[in-house]
Amino acid sequence: MTAVGIDAIEIRTGRLKLDLPGTFAPEQGEDPEKYTKGLGLHASSFPDSYEDIVTMGANAAHRLMERKGLEPEDIGRIDVATESAFDNSKPVSTYIAGCLEQVYDGDFHHANKGERKFACVAATQAVDDAYNWIRAGRNRGRAALVIATDTALYARDDPGEATQGAGAVAMLIDEDPSVVEISTEQGYGSADETDFLKPQQQFPSVDGKRSMQVYLARMREALEDFEHLSGDTHPDDYAYIPFHTPFPGMVRKAGLLGYRHMIRDTGVEDELAEEIGRQPRREAFDDEEAYQEAIREYVDALAETERYQEWYGNTVEPTLSISREVGNWYTGSVHIARASALRDADEKDIDLTGQELLVGSYGSGAQAEIHAETVQEGWREEIEAMNVDEQLDRRYDISFEEYEEIHDAHNHDVDSDVEELTTPENEFVFDGWGRMGERKYRYVE
Amino acid sequence: MTAVGIDAIEIRTGRLKLDLPGTFAPEQGEDPEKYTKGLGLHASSFPDSYEDIVTMGANAAHRLMERKGLEPEDIGRIDVATESAFDNSKPVSTYIAGCLEQVYDGDFHHANKGERKFACVAATQAVDDAYNWIRAGRNRGRAALVIATDTALYARDDPGEATQGAGAVAMLIDEDPSVVEISTEQGYGSADETDFLKPQQQFPSVDGKRSMQVYLARMREALEDFEHLSGDTHPDDYAYIPFHTPFPGMVRKAGLLGYRHMIRDTGVEDELAEEIGRQPRREAFDDEEAYQEAIREYVDALAETERYQEWYGNTVEPTLSISREVGNWYTGSVHIARASALRDADEKDIDLTGQELLVGSYGSGAQAEIHAETVQEGWREEIEAMNVDEQLDRRYDISFEEYEEIHDAHNHDVDSDVEELTTPENEFVFDGWGRMGERKYRYVE
Repeated sequence: MTAVGIDAIEIRTGRLKLDLPGTFAPEQGEDPEKYTKGLGLHASSFPDSYEDIVTMGANAAHRLMERKGLEPEDIGRIDVATESAFDNSKPVSTYIAGCLEQVYDGDFHHANKGERKFACVAATQAVDDAYNWIRAGRNRGRAALVIATDTALYARDDPGEATQGAGAVAMLIDEDPSVVEISTEQGYGSADETDFLKPQQQFPSVDGKRSMQVYLARMREALEDFEHLSGDTHPDDYAYIPFHTPFPGMVRKAGLLGYRHMIRDTGVEDELAEEIGRQPRREAFDDEEAYQEAIREYVDALAETERYQEWYGNTVEPTLSISREVGNWYTGSVHIARASALRDADEKDIDLTGQELLVGSYGSGAQAEIHAETVQEGWREEIEAMNVDEQLDRRYDISFEEYEEIHDAHNHDVDSDVEELTTPENEFVFDGWGRMGERKYRYVE
Repeated sequence: MTAVGIDAIEIRTGRLKLDLPGTFAPEQGEDPEKYTKGLGLHASSFPDSYEDIVTMGANAAHRLMERKGLEPEDIGRIDVATESAFDNSKPVSTYIAGCLEQVYDGDFHHANKGERKFACVAATQAVDDAYNWIRAGRNRGRAALVIATDTALYARDDPGEATQGAGAVAMLIDEDPSVVEISTEQGYGSADETDFLKPQQQFPSVDGKRSMQVYLARMREALEDFEHLSGDTHPDDYAYIPFHTPFPGMVRKAGLLGYRHMIRDTGVEDELAEEIGRQPRREAFDDEEAYQEAIREYVDALAETERYQEWYGNTVEPTLSISREVGNWYTGSVHIARASALRDADEKDIDLTGQELLVGSYGSGAQAEIHAETVQEGWREEIEAMNVDEQLDRRYDISFEEYEEIHDAHNHDVDSDVEELTTPENEFVFDGWGRMGERKYRYVE
């Protein structure tokens, strides 16, 4: 069976940067470590006033197409995943295709365009749809563009405000991919949850505590479903485990619980037993409360072991490096975690070809999906061709007053006219509204 | 290759009916024939105050599961297509699964749930995703539920007001389907168009004239793309041609242009030549205007021929019968057109097994998709098991004053408290808002 997976990745960050410990914390009267240590975040990306989900997505896709030497005719499918859509009918993919057609001779008239929404898990669903489309033999030799793009804002003074972020990830899904092959096996953990929603509103309503519980419960359920198909997972089977990252602190919890689950009944549990005992088993307890308390104690002890810390430091921690600098990008989140992992392997000169990743996607409301990926030969070249570091470095560092203005500029309910803080160059920009309320775009040389 | 396609269909209409010639026309001071002859519509369906896109979708899916003897574990995928979503993050499929879990012992925790949005074409995309998922061997023997559900309202006094409608179509996508097998070949016609949109608004902004031009242009482009894969189409190849039906009058135009395209360079064109001449060819004209004028004349003459009228009456006209009574259901529209066609064949006792349908889906913004379907042996039993006629008959016929109230009840910007006009029984109903602004549902015996 021909391999199908991710052939190329491009990341596009919003061009503004809010320094959380330096700029945000003092204004909130908070200890900077609340953000850097507690949440694990150093900065958030924001779009300048001429940027939005269309420009970020189109700019990521454009660089990807240029770098890979693609023409519109090479693309049979453009799916956009977003939870920041500004139209209830017309999908963002048509706007992005319209942007790209401004700079190419060809067009995307025979490409299937779509839009998926399921909080943060939607881009993984779009990658899967593209994978299945190729496997079903319907792609006519063409590749699929999947674009995750979001401007993830909270209401001002919401507890989630420090986790904001904005950016896009464009991925090319193709046969014989250069970056990773995707497994046929997928595990799902999905339930009707009221943890995070946006009922007829732009900014989310969040039950923070419930949201974290649901993330862990659904992720565990997805892992069990994946193991049902692929056999038991072992922590040493995977070079990296990129998770959806609402903020790095959440992944710290998920990594620990995942490790505990994976080592049960393995040699690792035996080897750790001398130091911290064996994992509590439900059958050994009369009541649930005592069992849960014992689990908590075991997990706390597990977190302190050298073995766990080494595993976490190698396998999970490196997936958080971009996220720490940009915040939560919703649909793009797990995809920047994968890119962070590959960048880490490149920097450490690890020979990753043929090694496995375990990828945990998640969307509130709620659904987790877990699948495996096998790193392909061309991964290093692809990762080195990305310019994400350059983009992060050139972001304009906004003052708190500028942050307040730019938040208003992207608030659908506020009518504001904010000056650009940066100068667009060789990119698609928002160009005002048309007569039917549509957003218009142009390419700036 | 095992056949994959639609195994079962259930239609759920909103429980209220607005009589267009009898109730709406007099209040608008319009000739009733404007609606019945011009648009081709007799009535619109509306949801009662306890109905919405979730209840209509869940009730359609519930009847489908009951009728087919399915348990939640038999379903591996639930995709909802809608352009009436009330949440910018949490997908409608999670609400529908939550409803169904109230009445089943099992759950959908290992099913992949999603939501697609692309005006009216989104449910066809979801059907395709399910088809590809099965073909890719990822379904683990399970089927997919695709639910198209919309409350298609316009602002009061908008020119589109008479084309409103509300209802849901649930479809089961499976191997060895009982209703139709879907072709691998798909033709697309897709462009970035500003014809119909809902920028941060519930009710659409429509450029009516442009919208009709774009429908015809994209449909033609999709047909050419389909022919590029499948070879030339011939009008006599298809038992029925269900189109997306914003209103039946639109399909009248599409049918005529499609017929003209299909008969070019065929024996049909030759046979008609004596009566109306051959089709004008661009190369025979010096200027575009004269060519277009000649085309219009040919098409007008073609529409009057007995041969065309017989073809239209057999192949297209019967696809409009449900639509005439319920209005536009957006994502469900082409799927009620297919059901209308099959119902017609059943009523006429036509032996349809093995015959082909050509299905034209469309979404503003804009994209057309055309594929073929082969009718399967079990089609008659499946179609006879639907209760759509019973549902249409039992709708409560609202007065104009009741229409005004019910429009307000479903207007997100109006805070209204409208009494139910019908009594729910054995169905899911809207049960008020929760503390985070979520909509709640319960099953009424």
